[in-house]
Amino acid sequence: MTRTFDQTAFEAAVTTIKTLSMDGVEKANSGHPGTPMGLADIAFELWANHLRHDPKDPTWIGRDRFVLSCGHASMLIYSLLHLFDYGLSIEDLKNFRQWGSKTPGHPEVFHTAGVEITTGPLGSGVSSAVGFALAEKMKEARFGAPFVHNHVYVICSDGDVQEGISAEAASLAGHWGLDNLTVIWDDNRITIEGTTDLATSEDVGARYEAQGWSVVRIDGHNRGEIAKALDKANRTKGRPTFVVARTHIANGAPHAHDTSEAHGAPLGKAEIAATKTALGVDPALDFYVPEVVRTAVAARVAELHGERQAWDANYAVWRAGDAAKADALDSLLGKVVPDDLLTQLIEAIPAKEDATRNLSNAIEQKVAALLPSLIGGSADLGPSTKTLIKNGGSIGAGSYEGRNLFFGIREHGMGAIVNGLALAGGFIPFGSTFLVFSDYMRGSIRLSAVMGLQTLWIYTHDSVWLGEDGPTHQPIEHLWALRLIPNLHVVRPADALETAAAWTMAIQRKHGPTAFALSRQKVPNLVRPSGFVPTDMLKGAYVVYEPSSEERMTLPSFPAHPDVILVATGSEVGVAVEAAKTLAAEGKQVRVVSALCLEVFDEQDVDYKESILPHGVKLAAFEAGRTGPWRAIVGRDGLVIGVDHFGASAPDKVLAEKFGLTAPQVADKLRAYIG
Amino acid sequence: MTRTFDQTAFEAAVTTIKTLSMDGVEKANSGHPGTPMGLADIAFELWANHLRHDPKDPTWIGRDRFVLSCGHASMLIYSLLHLFDYGLSIEDLKNFRQWGSKTPGHPEVFHTAGVEITTGPLGSGVSSAVGFALAEKMKEARFGAPFVHNHVYVICSDGDVQEGISAEAASLAGHWGLDNLTVIWDDNRITIEGTTDLATSEDVGARYEAQGWSVVRIDGHNRGEIAKALDKANRTKGRPTFVVARTHIANGAPHAHDTSEAHGAPLGKAEIAATKTALGVDPALDFYVPEVVRTAVAARVAELHGERQAWDANYAVWRAGDAAKADALDSLLGKVVPDDLLTQLIEAIPAKEDATRNLSNAIEQKVAALLPSLIGGSADLGPSTKTLIKNGGSIGAGSYEGRNLFFGIREHGMGAIVNGLALAGGFIPFGSTFLVFSDYMRGSIRLSAVMGLQTLWIYTHDSVWLGEDGPTHQPIEHLWALRLIPNLHVVRPADALETAAAWTMAIQRKHGPTAFALSRQKVPNLVRPSGFVPTDMLKGAYVVYEPSSEERMTLPSFPAHPDVILVATGSEVGVAVEAAKTLAAEGKQVRVVSALCLEVFDEQDVDYKESILPHGVKLAAFEAGRTGPWRAIVGRDGLVIGVDHFGASAPDKVLAEKFGLTAPQVADKLRAYIG
Repeated sequence: MTRTFDQTAFEAAVTTIKTLSMDGVEKANSGHPGTPMGLADIAFELWANHLRHDPKDPTWIGRDRFVLSCGHASMLIYSLLHLFDYGLSIEDLKNFRQWGSKTPGHPEVFHTAGVEITTGPLGSGVSSAVGFALAEKMKEARFGAPFVHNHVYVICSDGDVQEGISAEAASLAGHWGLDNLTVIWDDNRITIEGTTDLATSEDVGARYEAQGWSVVRIDGHNRGEIAKALDKANRTKGRPTFVVARTHIANGAPHAHDTSEAHGAPLGKAEIAATKTALGVDPALDFYVPEVVRTAVAARVAELHGERQAWDANYAVWRAGDAAKADALDSLLGKVVPDDLLTQLIEAIPAKEDATRNLSNAIEQKVAALLPSLIGGSADLGPSTKTLIKNGGSIGAGSYEGRNLFFGIREHGMGAIVNGLALAGGFIPFGSTFLVFSDYMRGSIRLSAVMGLQTLWIYTHDSVWLGEDGPTHQPIEHLWALRLIPNLHVVRPADALETAAAWTMAIQRKHGPTAFALSRQKVPNLVRPSGFVPTDMLKGAYVVYEPSSEERMTLPSFPAHPDVILVATGSEVGVAVEAAKTLAAEGKQVRVVSALCLEVFDEQDVDYKESILPHGVKLAAFEAGRTGPWRAIVGRDGLVIGVDHFGASAPDKVLAEKFGLTAPQVADKLRAYIG
Repeated sequence: MTRTFDQTAFEAAVTTIKTLSMDGVEKANSGHPGTPMGLADIAFELWANHLRHDPKDPTWIGRDRFVLSCGHASMLIYSLLHLFDYGLSIEDLKNFRQWGSKTPGHPEVFHTAGVEITTGPLGSGVSSAVGFALAEKMKEARFGAPFVHNHVYVICSDGDVQEGISAEAASLAGHWGLDNLTVIWDDNRITIEGTTDLATSEDVGARYEAQGWSVVRIDGHNRGEIAKALDKANRTKGRPTFVVARTHIANGAPHAHDTSEAHGAPLGKAEIAATKTALGVDPALDFYVPEVVRTAVAARVAELHGERQAWDANYAVWRAGDAAKADALDSLLGKVVPDDLLTQLIEAIPAKEDATRNLSNAIEQKVAALLPSLIGGSADLGPSTKTLIKNGGSIGAGSYEGRNLFFGIREHGMGAIVNGLALAGGFIPFGSTFLVFSDYMRGSIRLSAVMGLQTLWIYTHDSVWLGEDGPTHQPIEHLWALRLIPNLHVVRPADALETAAAWTMAIQRKHGPTAFALSRQKVPNLVRPSGFVPTDMLKGAYVVYEPSSEERMTLPSFPAHPDVILVATGSEVGVAVEAAKTLAAEGKQVRVVSALCLEVFDEQDVDYKESILPHGVKLAAFEAGRTGPWRAIVGRDGLVIGVDHFGASAPDKVLAEKFGLTAPQVADKLRAYIG
């Protein structure tokens, strides 16, 4: 949609964005003034005349999305949110980059109304925007009218196009033919270290063309060219649009113009005064918004709300016309989960013992049947990670009804796209690869945790037990490296029951990501002690094995406590139980605790935690990975059985023997530890 | 250089590579047969007729490099290494993927002669090859003749071109005009999940053209076209060459041909027999090498050695002609370090107190003056990470004498290129960015540790103390996430002296990587206890503060042990000492240990470790990041002061107060802990 705007008011508004941005950074004595100034023309034309939005309802499902991928230019979006009455006051702008303010250094979603996504790490916003655009296409394919023409606009910087993550995502956007995606590249030819020709000489537009995009080249300060490019982008079918917008950083500043100094530091009082003078603004006025701008933007906001009301009327008709579809939409957007999810998933467990990746596959099918929200795919490892949704259909260019995505060998792009799918609303997306390759997408995992998104990271081949592929493919440090990310849950199920529990926890956790660690190799289904109830597993750690009364009979008396409590996870739990049984036959009492999810266990009350890991009892841990952090639980001199060196290429059973991970070896170590 | 090869022997050799690859995978019952078969024509033409190498001396400095970026196709390089007499026997091939063999699942450098780099994680090999090519150009620029025309050849797969890391590195290769780099893309249109059109539709050749490469398209099974493409690549000036080689996976196998099933699993006995029959080989023969192949390749190896001897003669003349240059070369290749390095670096410490990033800059200048091997750069954050080598000159297209690299906003590509520079020999390269962005390059950091390379990862802005940039830029989990990587040393200096020690440790560590964590904010220069000698720091952890005798005088008697030993790192050490002084004035004895490098401390003998962290004394830890792993040192119920949630945008002093990291707050917590 294109609208028009009075030329005088338009120019004054662009000037106002520049002066607010300069003033905000100056007051904070920190920030990035040059980029908002260089982008003011493009951003105001977009927000005033093209973007479909309703500032009175920033989460309207019929809105277009705006992504400021160069999050460091945050004063740009804060200025726009102030002008368009999204609830940011001048006081908020004055509190830029201060504790507790609505205007942090980089935009944060769920913190400032109108911010769609947390950006800052370069490349992430423009890549997640591919997920946004795909999500709108997928909702349109399922529900039609309410999601037609929901467009995603991105403003991005040199960093965003240089980062590999964006090359991966751009390739997929072209492949999927996402014509509801427009990326405007702020081609200002300045980066922190100097002019861009220090580090790049590629033809960025030609690269995007090679990746299947429609490419438009414009003067980013020419209002007419900007409008024409956005109109063309909206008309282009079957391809996303990449706008190469030649701009000038700190545009309008007499000395800072086109300099790398304008990137990341306040311009200083003198330059700000000179700039304001050059722009026809009284240098004595700080955080100034002329009345002509207030009036004109208020009128536009009213118009936008009028459009929204028209949409509401059509939406009401649409809902009335197909109540079942409307209900389905509500269910999708609400990510509604059955109360007895764990029970239903346990019922879906296959009869035969298997690797947890295969068990997870079976349970995932049940989740998919219960929850249309579940979608996802793998970075070209689906046949190994076992994540395909059966009969789920596939996403391809012009074909958006399916649930399976094929990301190619692009983990980081996958991560960002999955985050975008989660942010768009209605979907619980997963991305899958081998655990070791979580390294490739760690930036996206972290952002899912920072934003509190319900994304599922399904990692398989989760230890040296993967065998022959060797050290480059065997995760050693990855379980703990993931557990270190705040707000991320890591689930490592030991058998079929725990795999059902892991899925239950991940699906019920609506505001945070979960990483699965699943085995390549077969694990036994464990026999729990009497008194066990499946919901015990949802506490994160629980007693999975107690020496049986028959075994205890061999002892002269029953000890109040076991000799050792051995904490294990995932595929090591079965081995731990086997070792414990061996020792039980010798009269040594080893209780085994399965730590399915340490983060959830940590949230339990003190009494429960003490009941599982009591003080005064010898503790030990067993996990086929780094041992150090386990000492936080078992103590500085406690026994930890694990792997502290890189792996090796050999069959899994050989590696287990060489690395001391077999049941007899574990029993030996426990025996020595008991003393 | 182009040579010719008898057509019959050539065809037999190609067939032999195919049959050895099938047999190796079949015997291991694990591996990837299809890709070596599809690449046999290209690889043999390259090795026999183009690659400059001397199998008798795999580390010859005048050799061309061969990088098999698709490391899963390892039977290809193992077959070639066998045929060309690099020391791999038929027995070695039969031990493919077995414990302790020379033929692990993916090729491993320093393990199998003739393997130049460990590959497997896709995108890494082809990206590190850019570092190889640049290193040869840099050595040629410095020393001339011995390094002229050292060419780097890469064979890569779909994954290698889809991964973002390679897009980053390719852009730099084009920008730097590396005409000694040729990448051959195995365009077989098959990936694990199926045909490549599932996940990609880009024009890969056009993308490389946009990135400044010369692009050649060939039939990858046509010997003439392969030879012509390689000849052209060798003649092309000022640009790297990208060869789009249309191939067929499992070429020659009647049923597996062009199928994704041929990618990652043995073909099976029946298909292998059928393939051998189709190729004219007796199906009864396993691991068979025909005499015609042995004879012809032996002749070629002899010729290659003859060329090597001619090179040796020229090299001797070159050395005799400029003894100073020859000595300089030896010194570069030997990475020779003065014995009194620590002393010299301490002398380079600037007078005024500063942030450790700035102190590091001063010390780095001294290292650069002492060691021509030191080169490196930043991912567009040099002015913030302070890593520029003053008067070091810059690398650009056709200009390879400088020491400063400008990587652009490409952390992962930087990591891979830095690894390539280290592998090439003679250089100690560094790559630099903010600590939080180590996430973007974790794959490369891990590979530097797997390979045991002397790479320096210089990370600054190492905690929430970076302030206003907020949670996306504030590392919380990163120090521990790096410490989890086996074989990586993490140094976090507390002041100027420790910064000199950190550099000393990193430079003296010739076979492993070091990650620096440096502060944005100013730190005080600490006053050490009497008896301190600078080499104490090289033990990784040492007593940096003891309550002074004057302070102790206020106590009725001198305790044998302090009330608490507080372990701190980096910028928190100064705060810890301030808190300890406050408590000393109250008669409470807090000793402060600075843990400059926990990995090095861990290598010390038991007595030393016990002297620093004695049992029976209350231990506490203080680091502005995740607390959990510190409990491995201070015990399950020990005090750890840190940050376990994401950060926030505000000035650093405000954050310190809000997060409980100021000296008075630390003193309060210690007071409560002492009880």
